[in-house]
Amino acid sequence: MGYRLSFLVPDTFLFHSNTYICSMRKLNLKELNRLSTKGFKQREKFPIVLVLDNIRSALNVGSAFRTADGFALEHIYLCGITARPPHREILKTAIGASSSMEWSYFENVEECLKHCKDQGYVLLGAEQTDESILLQDFKVSDGQSYAIVMGNEVNGISDESLPFLDHCLEIPQFGTKHSFNVSVATGIIVWDIFNKMNY
Amino acid sequence: MGYRLSFLVPDTFLFHSNTYICSMRKLNLKELNRLSTKGFKQREKFPIVLVLDNIRSALNVGSAFRTADGFALEHIYLCGITARPPHREILKTAIGASSSMEWSYFENVEECLKHCKDQGYVLLGAEQTDESILLQDFKVSDGQSYAIVMGNEVNGISDESLPFLDHCLEIPQFGTKHSFNVSVATGIIVWDIFNKMNY
Repeated sequence: MGYRLSFLVPDTFLFHSNTYICSMRKLNLKELNRLSTKGFKQREKFPIVLVLDNIRSALNVGSAFRTADGFALEHIYLCGITARPPHREILKTAIGASSSMEWSYFENVEECLKHCKDQGYVLLGAEQTDESILLQDFKVSDGQSYAIVMGNEVNGISDESLPFLDHCLEIPQFGTKHSFNVSVATGIIVWDIFNKMNY
Repeated sequence: MGYRLSFLVPDTFLFHSNTYICSMRKLNLKELNRLSTKGFKQREKFPIVLVLDNIRSALNVGSAFRTADGFALEHIYLCGITARPPHREILKTAIGASSSMEWSYFENVEECLKHCKDQGYVLLGAEQTDESILLQDFKVSDGQSYAIVMGNEVNGISDESLPFLDHCLEIPQFGTKHSFNVSVATGIIVWDIFNKMNY
């Protein structure tokens, strides 16, 4: 009977307190339906690319790779001083996503942004400017592809990049810092744009 | 004349190409209206707390402090092995937010979650379970306070925490990893819940 019960409810939590009974069960690795690197390369991607312009920390680059893999983005462009795979610290935070994600390198960010423009992407920079749109107010257009441009940890979007951007997006902030970690900001903006695309 | 022009358009980019003229200007530090630590402590907070349960990397903890400061969250609860300030690596990624944010420590996560329940928070865990709600489908209730519970980098939400959660939220994923960096996931979920609260 004990065996039957444990067979019927493997890894399930039965918890009784004054107020609730919970039987949520964490999914195991198989249930997550993770794609192989080959399967990922073949699957259709969502029409968003990331441009990392002069990102100083390779840990942040790796984290962006992992986010891009999670949301099945099309491509990552690495520009200027941004570290490129193979790199020990990228591997540490990308945990494999630097193999699954397509990426390319441009020494010159302007060339990269021109390339994205030519490919039809609308360029969105993460920056606080006098014309920034609050992230929640930005509306995506049906069928439009977007390039999300993230700048340096300290200096933000570079002076060379700014003139190429179609819009700057600003995550509303209320604290003492007025800046998020660049990989956190990447996650927030990618999620928000992705979610608005309604896939 | 040169002087007048540079006076009228300080730090402004005037860029002419075939297709666009851009005059976006990055905001300077003064224009960001950042709060002092004292000012932050006195300002009204948004009714969200973070619970960090057994977070292994102090860099991730620091990053969560910075995110919490940015969104003016009420409190951070640190549980189990989660590193506590003062800590060199927390400082590195929190860049000061560990001074502005109120935090407390519970060795035992169950006590922390009971405390949050008693305070009226609805507990939201970031976890892939058989009952998870996709993040985009979760609706917030008017006037409700939320505690967002983030688990260990490798093992996720702990077995002890799971029974206390009101809901588990899952960020949709399409890649090879099926997991985001914990500080990125924290940013995405905090942003999503915060944004839905319509402040």
